[in-house]
Amino acid sequence: MTTVAAYAAPAAKAPLERTTIERREVGEFDVLIDVKYAGICHSDIHQAREGWGRAMFPMVPGHEIAGVVSEVGAGVTKYAVGDRVGVGCMVDSCRECGNCKDGLEQYCERRPTWTYNSVGKDGEPTHGGYSQKIVVDENYVVRIPDGLALDVAAPLLCAGITTYSPLKYWNAGPGKKVAVVGFGGLGHMGVKIAHALGAEVTVLSQSLRKRDDGLRLGADHYYATSDPKTFEDLRDTFDIILNTVSAPLDFTAFLSLLRTGGAMVNVGLPEEPIQIPLSSVFGNRRSLTSSNIGGIAETQEMLDFCAEHGLGAEIELIDADRINEAYERVLASDVRYRFVIDAATI
Amino acid sequence: MTTVAAYAAPAAKAPLERTTIERREVGEFDVLIDVKYAGICHSDIHQAREGWGRAMFPMVPGHEIAGVVSEVGAGVTKYAVGDRVGVGCMVDSCRECGNCKDGLEQYCERRPTWTYNSVGKDGEPTHGGYSQKIVVDENYVVRIPDGLALDVAAPLLCAGITTYSPLKYWNAGPGKKVAVVGFGGLGHMGVKIAHALGAEVTVLSQSLRKRDDGLRLGADHYYATSDPKTFEDLRDTFDIILNTVSAPLDFTAFLSLLRTGGAMVNVGLPEEPIQIPLSSVFGNRRSLTSSNIGGIAETQEMLDFCAEHGLGAEIELIDADRINEAYERVLASDVRYRFVIDAATI
Repeated sequence: MTTVAAYAAPAAKAPLERTTIERREVGEFDVLIDVKYAGICHSDIHQAREGWGRAMFPMVPGHEIAGVVSEVGAGVTKYAVGDRVGVGCMVDSCRECGNCKDGLEQYCERRPTWTYNSVGKDGEPTHGGYSQKIVVDENYVVRIPDGLALDVAAPLLCAGITTYSPLKYWNAGPGKKVAVVGFGGLGHMGVKIAHALGAEVTVLSQSLRKRDDGLRLGADHYYATSDPKTFEDLRDTFDIILNTVSAPLDFTAFLSLLRTGGAMVNVGLPEEPIQIPLSSVFGNRRSLTSSNIGGIAETQEMLDFCAEHGLGAEIELIDADRINEAYERVLASDVRYRFVIDAATI
Repeated sequence: MTTVAAYAAPAAKAPLERTTIERREVGEFDVLIDVKYAGICHSDIHQAREGWGRAMFPMVPGHEIAGVVSEVGAGVTKYAVGDRVGVGCMVDSCRECGNCKDGLEQYCERRPTWTYNSVGKDGEPTHGGYSQKIVVDENYVVRIPDGLALDVAAPLLCAGITTYSPLKYWNAGPGKKVAVVGFGGLGHMGVKIAHALGAEVTVLSQSLRKRDDGLRLGADHYYATSDPKTFEDLRDTFDIILNTVSAPLDFTAFLSLLRTGGAMVNVGLPEEPIQIPLSSVFGNRRSLTSSNIGGIAETQEMLDFCAEHGLGAEIELIDADRINEAYERVLASDVRYRFVIDAATI
């Protein structure tokens, strides 16, 4: 066991504070990673505040982890000391079910071991990236290509793959019209990736406040959803609506923006139950669906794609003692576009 | 104008009665069809009783029409007198929008002209198949292959295409598991078609009452949804759930039966608003979607497929004076599996 510094929420809704945690010994197939940067994802807040239900405390959040390998187990073949690597939302899964075998570990039929707020196969609670070091099985580690700086790469491990996977699955590309609902941590990556895939990209945001950023980062169009005219003008328009907003929306109105055969993919999981009228999926065989991060191989593919296209997250780098302040700012949508913790300050 | 006998609902919820209607003269591109058989579809009842909202009366329902061409306009090239033909839910559409050009006339952006309870381009209300004759533009007429008897072919014009189109669109075929919810007029055709496409077919019906029929008509498995164990046993099983039931269902329970990437396609449009928890589409990127009949070319493709595989509807042939009784029996699910009116008795 190794004792490492970390920031943890001691209880639900309590502020995070500096503490120490134990990391397991580096096992045969394990990689020890010196965490360099950890992104702050909205789901860290959902979990630390029990917005999604009962959680385990103390909790060290963080599933957007970029770092450097500092030790490898005897059986490790994929990574060597000094390699630049990332860890996302999962650190293990059953590896035997149909979904795991299909590279869809995120949908593991026995549930994946999440990077934090989860229990590993050793029966111990997992702890995430708001810490100096993390030990992870090499099969759940991805390589960060040289072309990507570690700080802007960290958020790709969740915000990047969460938007990349459904955009690929629903065939975003040339000739396709993609709307990205919400222009925050996920949304701004959705815009960058959809644009790089060749799609025509429209941002649907509450206001036009971030319009210039949107157009600069790859959007072709930017509309305010607070303006009812938006829903008239864009009726029957999109092949894909990528909804990154976890707050309640008027789903009937958004679904009406789908053209024939279009899909509205929800990647933000709301805290409150939301009911959708079945009638709003009738007509034009539109689909209401969701997507949850992506598999390990697809996460690697996403990183390679982002490196090739020069896509990193837009970030605001913070010291660890500002995590609680950052949480409040995330909730107030006051971040452009992802907070990333400099792990040297933990 | 030609006066023909027909059965019409004089007002919402009033019994249908024998009357006469006027059919337009046969225009340049029109086909006059001697109706031989007309199926009774549940949506006839929804409309005749204003279950889907305000309707036009008197109403002659019927959009499962099989007959023989008895006259053609000067410009008609596709059909000749004596041809065996069918007419489904549409008799016209704008022919210019993207959907019409893509063969998706059912999703015409200016709305199709429905076979009845609709207004044609001439400004006149349309009247359906519960009549001795009908005049239809040749582009909205399909050919009934010789291998299919007209009486069992009639229901294919709605029940056949409504199930065929989504099964094809969502790739039902070998290696795919398809559940058909409801084993009535639509459901029994869904089973026959999914089986002929090579899928493994499961019926999910309220009870096991029609189990023998289900297995005989092509189902591999038959489960009662009244048994909670069904939902445990079949969790994460299906690639496609074809829901033919228009009554409210526990959608969360049914959606949990989809495997990763699976789609629940609703083809029965409920009369009452139904709310679905958004959370029930989360996990396993499952989709909630719908489908509405099919395009004209696809309807022809479906008829050819059914002829090739020897698939007709299971019908109970009735005289026209039993239409009101048949409506009550449809509402009581007391039909195996489609009433078809012998138009000679109108």
